[in-house]
Amino acid sequence: MEKLSIDEKFGLFSEHWRPKVIARLNGQEVKLIKLQGVFPWHKHETQDEMFLVWRGVFRVEFRDRVVTLNPGELIVVPAGVEHRTAADEEAEVLCFEPEGVRNTGDIDDPEFTAPMGA
Amino acid sequence: MEKLSIDEKFGLFSEHWRPKVIARLNGQEVKLIKLQGVFPWHKHETQDEMFLVWRGVFRVEFRDRVVTLNPGELIVVPAGVEHRTAADEEAEVLCFEPEGVRNTGDIDDPEFTAPMGA
Repeated sequence: MEKLSIDEKFGLFSEHWRPKVIARLNGQEVKLIKLQGVFPWHKHETQDEMFLVWRGVFRVEFRDRVVTLNPGELIVVPAGVEHRTAADEEAEVLCFEPEGVRNTGDIDDPEFTAPMGA
Repeated sequence: MEKLSIDEKFGLFSEHWRPKVIARLNGQEVKLIKLQGVFPWHKHETQDEMFLVWRGVFRVEFRDRVVTLNPGELIVVPAGVEHRTAADEEAEVLCFEPEGVRNTGDIDDPEFTAPMGA
């Protein structure tokens, strides 16, 4: 029951595409992600995923359209929907999703798939 | 799969202590709350609750201590822990918790208990 600062937590790491769990509740996790570039196409078969932009400009690309988000904007990507995330300049994003989600969902990518529990 | 702006959503209402659901995912809800003053003591028997401060200064009071949070800070209140929330000046807070949580938990308060589904 301690508070934590999101800015402080973002200050603790610099890697891109490696979600950091900062809180757990009700079987869900709150993760921080720094990213730049374009992530592989993937989907999560059974888990919805919410992204809230903290800093920078962040894109969620679907097969038929692109949603561009600024700080203070959020989007829910429903389970089963193919998508990829992207940012031209470094962006910082909060992610809410169930425990144990693999960041690349149904695909295995040597560069982008993050170790579980990291 | 539309984005939404948290500031825009906060701009749509002015009542205090009436959570507004802005997103649902994985059986959880993201709610916005405006508050000022002191909420009744209560607990949620089976649900953890996360508060993320968006604007203003927000307190979570426990029976043995007080945690004061500024914008960009968050806290998880575990299930079963008695607490009350408070703010001297109006504050804006995001809350993340399972669907169907009653805001006053185990107590029924004529002023503060919010109608369900509002």
